[in-house]
Amino acid sequence: MFALDSRLQQDTLTIGDFPLCRLLLSNDSNYPWFILVPRRDDISELFQLDVADQQQLWQETTALAEVLKDSFDADKLNVATLGNVVSQLHMHVIVRKRDDAAWPAPVWGKHPAKPYVADQVEAIRERLRLVLPADFTFLEG
Amino acid sequence: MFALDSRLQQDTLTIGDFPLCRLLLSNDSNYPWFILVPRRDDISELFQLDVADQQQLWQETTALAEVLKDSFDADKLNVATLGNVVSQLHMHVIVRKRDDAAWPAPVWGKHPAKPYVADQVEAIRERLRLVLPADFTFLEG
Repeated sequence: MFALDSRLQQDTLTIGDFPLCRLLLSNDSNYPWFILVPRRDDISELFQLDVADQQQLWQETTALAEVLKDSFDADKLNVATLGNVVSQLHMHVIVRKRDDAAWPAPVWGKHPAKPYVADQVEAIRERLRLVLPADFTFLEG
Repeated sequence: MFALDSRLQQDTLTIGDFPLCRLLLSNDSNYPWFILVPRRDDISELFQLDVADQQQLWQETTALAEVLKDSFDADKLNVATLGNVVSQLHMHVIVRKRDDAAWPAPVWGKHPAKPYVADQVEAIRERLRLVLPADFTFLEG
């Protein structure tokens, strides 16, 4: 059974589910910073997924990056799976802007997280409702 | 015609070519740090590649990570495309060890690069010869 790592749970807000991945929003309003977590057990590296899941993860990652580009007016998308601290496989998809807090450095460890207020999260959900595909299921909580 | 970004050229050593990507070695002996560059013009985001190239990039990235895991005794693979400084699309595939210079932080900007000496690069090439697939072509230079 899929269980989200407790650190990911603590640092993010749940948005919903693609066919393979749970979509999370990092609770850091410095950047529109999303995280995809394949709903599979005991996977820490890409190549541990079976080939069909690898292709699905890639498809969900790339499609998410593409809709975020326009919807959040990105100058660049940063796409990364690191997992040095949280070993559960998770893919960062981060909207970067030339005037954001860390540009041009990577975001990790650069600035303390600035938690969202509820209205900001609702605004992001509303924006995502316009662009995420029909096979995406929004979840509350 | 494919031309490698001058900054990538300057900071890396050429290893060879997968069917889609040029494989480079970051000239930083702190970590076995590889970079895949699709040999396509004017691409800075994953979703700008056509779908066949996206699948091929994913396949080459995942296969490279898998062979590096064993061959370089990785504790974790870091896989990322950032591109905030060098816009030409390039995928980092970095062998991380719990005792490396930056662990558990990401490697970017953490320590000044420690250039390789020629023997070290030759040893890496030899190691790769044992594990890279038959459709990989080694290049000198």
